[in-house]
Amino acid sequence: MSKYDIIVLGSGPGGYVAAIRASQLGFKTAIVEKENLGGICLNWGCIPTKALLKSAQVFEYLKHAEDYGLSVKEYDKDFNAVVKRSRGVAEGMSNGVKFLMKKNKIDVIDGFGKLKAGKKIDVDGKEYSADHIIIATGARSRELPSLPQDGKKVIGYRQAMSLPKQPKKIIVVGSGAIGVEFAYFYNSMGTEVTIVEYLDRIVPVEDEEVSKQLERSFKKNGIKVMTSAEVTSVDTSGEGVKATVKTKKGEEILEADIVLSAVGIKSNIENIGLEDVGIAVDRDKVLVNDYYQTNIPGYYAIGDITPGQALAHVASAEAILCVEKIAGMHVEAIDYGNVPGCTYCTPEIASVGLTEKQAKEKGFDIKVGKFPFSASGKASAGGNKEGFVKVIFDAKYGEWLGCHMIGAGVTDMIAEAVLGRKLETTGHEVLKAIHPHPTMSEAVMEAVADAYDEVIHL
Amino acid sequence: MSKYDIIVLGSGPGGYVAAIRASQLGFKTAIVEKENLGGICLNWGCIPTKALLKSAQVFEYLKHAEDYGLSVKEYDKDFNAVVKRSRGVAEGMSNGVKFLMKKNKIDVIDGFGKLKAGKKIDVDGKEYSADHIIIATGARSRELPSLPQDGKKVIGYRQAMSLPKQPKKIIVVGSGAIGVEFAYFYNSMGTEVTIVEYLDRIVPVEDEEVSKQLERSFKKNGIKVMTSAEVTSVDTSGEGVKATVKTKKGEEILEADIVLSAVGIKSNIENIGLEDVGIAVDRDKVLVNDYYQTNIPGYYAIGDITPGQALAHVASAEAILCVEKIAGMHVEAIDYGNVPGCTYCTPEIASVGLTEKQAKEKGFDIKVGKFPFSASGKASAGGNKEGFVKVIFDAKYGEWLGCHMIGAGVTDMIAEAVLGRKLETTGHEVLKAIHPHPTMSEAVMEAVADAYDEVIHL
Repeated sequence: MSKYDIIVLGSGPGGYVAAIRASQLGFKTAIVEKENLGGICLNWGCIPTKALLKSAQVFEYLKHAEDYGLSVKEYDKDFNAVVKRSRGVAEGMSNGVKFLMKKNKIDVIDGFGKLKAGKKIDVDGKEYSADHIIIATGARSRELPSLPQDGKKVIGYRQAMSLPKQPKKIIVVGSGAIGVEFAYFYNSMGTEVTIVEYLDRIVPVEDEEVSKQLERSFKKNGIKVMTSAEVTSVDTSGEGVKATVKTKKGEEILEADIVLSAVGIKSNIENIGLEDVGIAVDRDKVLVNDYYQTNIPGYYAIGDITPGQALAHVASAEAILCVEKIAGMHVEAIDYGNVPGCTYCTPEIASVGLTEKQAKEKGFDIKVGKFPFSASGKASAGGNKEGFVKVIFDAKYGEWLGCHMIGAGVTDMIAEAVLGRKLETTGHEVLKAIHPHPTMSEAVMEAVADAYDEVIHL
Repeated sequence: MSKYDIIVLGSGPGGYVAAIRASQLGFKTAIVEKENLGGICLNWGCIPTKALLKSAQVFEYLKHAEDYGLSVKEYDKDFNAVVKRSRGVAEGMSNGVKFLMKKNKIDVIDGFGKLKAGKKIDVDGKEYSADHIIIATGARSRELPSLPQDGKKVIGYRQAMSLPKQPKKIIVVGSGAIGVEFAYFYNSMGTEVTIVEYLDRIVPVEDEEVSKQLERSFKKNGIKVMTSAEVTSVDTSGEGVKATVKTKKGEEILEADIVLSAVGIKSNIENIGLEDVGIAVDRDKVLVNDYYQTNIPGYYAIGDITPGQALAHVASAEAILCVEKIAGMHVEAIDYGNVPGCTYCTPEIASVGLTEKQAKEKGFDIKVGKFPFSASGKASAGGNKEGFVKVIFDAKYGEWLGCHMIGAGVTDMIAEAVLGRKLETTGHEVLKAIHPHPTMSEAVMEAVADAYDEVIHL
């Protein structure tokens, strides 16, 4: 039986990062993976979707080339080539993780790992033991009883990014990041897209003004948006699929080639031996403390299988913290209130902290500032006038409570707000940090200035 | 004679921002402009060049559409339409400033203003007085004796962004931001471009590794780069222009349609009455203290006409500080060591603080971290694998001495480093500020991790 210091179960952005950090800190480390190194994120999530979205973005440039003084007479997209590029990028990233495992001298154990008592793990009949076992099995697309996925006509994100043929019509159920990214992608490719959202606005975790802006933008681009609407049943017996949608106005039957179910995720807690070991779970989440220790010593859990935002960067941060704690380093618990969220449709969305509504509900007396990209020189020059930056400060102590952005490139701009909030910046300090001109990032400075009635360009 | 609290001479990003802040703070304000509101920046600088560069960027997408699974059979650029778009963007921005002047009840005085003693200003024969006069007359393209500009064959940036006809061959003398931006733009449009740089590397104010990366990228794209080279004379007597270039290997004659002189700028200090008032200058800069007060009470100077980086965002920051000081507010002197610089060719460049060489020369014991975009998932997905983020920390106290970026979208990423440095962040805090995945901004976190031997994805 092979013995390790640390075995990691699952090689997504939680697992492989844990393994690398463990190896850096001198632990003899192995990682167990049943499918592809990199997990969902690299193979079926973050990365390949961004590749699809990039093709869509470039396709939009072809459509609107004249706006930039260019002409395109004959152009088209090759749906299969777009998907192939995305798969290629995913494969490249997965190979990258393979390289990192090798470079860091991490043993990769292929197969389905099952936890056993006594800090052991069984992989397809072979047993391994470790001083510390980190569970990072991630999550998958959640299935609604009313919307069972057959993988053909009713699909999850995985199929949605590798369809053999472009659908003519698609219904996207759910309008979180995954839903709206695919809605944007397919609409851009020429598919007729309808979004069905149960709540009263799309991207419902975002600030309400962000939701409004995205809905306006999507509708302008021909995406149909149904809110306060629910798919109560689907009929896949015919050629396509018929979805019964309940709205406030009554029932409606929508026809499409495909229904994409994007109603959230479900942790992979089944059949991995949690019960055998006696690891405590609540619903589908493994319970952990601030250091990702489960109730059973020597077993840890990180990433989507634990409570907290199910995001790749959260999993990676938890991975590093978990391993550093095992190594006896001084660690500081993750501040889940300062985790940014990003959505990569056009316009992009990025946010961190409290929405305006949340801030009010928590009883803060707030100062709100907003700067539209329509007033930004760089946005005008780039043809990216859609969207805004909105900031929320506590009026009393000046704490930067939240930052909400929608527009071109904002997913690369939110880091400033995250770092600023971590360092407990005041609005005044953001104002006096000179933002380069002309950039989209000036909108952050201007939004802060607006909160303090000092905005220049409004 | 009209009397104001504050009169601003010049309406660039120094002047118009000063006027707006003054009006916000309750001052009766006027602004004098001899040409177009917004000055060089909005009309002939930052903004219209970014519009040109955006057209170039989109044109590159047309050229490389296949890389994204798209096909373009017939495409072209319309040089005049590209220029027209740029002029339209500039005009829109200038109108925006006009709107802001009106909204802020700032009197706009059209004409050439000349300072007079007694806090007066003469504008084409009409006299105005003020308690405070802020000089913000900016700068223009510097002329070398060996390279006199005729505006036709030997031109400055102003002509370069509004040529009536696309040149077949262009020689760009000087490789600062202006030079390399035009080099990239014209090369992308199909013009044969040669850069002649006096120093031994292009973008010589940047970190040496950034210069190397840009030169590699430019050469790959067909731009000829001559360093340690000097144009000693030009002959414009023939159809085109013949430039004699002195290099280490000897003299060479280059032929082109046009020579663009981009060898820096010269302040507009002439004929504005500085001598009449007795305002002290050194070479072509007006001398000011930390609050932009000149030696003569009641006269202030900001922007390119003063020492310090000749950048729009510096002028705006000086404007705000100058006016706030006049208003009796508590102000903190600008930290010129924390001013970011941006260059918007492809790949983009953004930097702040010390280069590696400067840090060493200043005697710092340094930790250097570097993360190439080739190892970034978002960069792979977006097809933007060129470039890197490089960070420099003081090994002893952990101060973030410098941050140097080259790659797609980095001009919107440098704000994080500026704010972090302003807040005296440590590398550890940057690492523990969770950067969203997948973004280009993760490269900042990874570069910092690399400096501390904790990098994950290398």
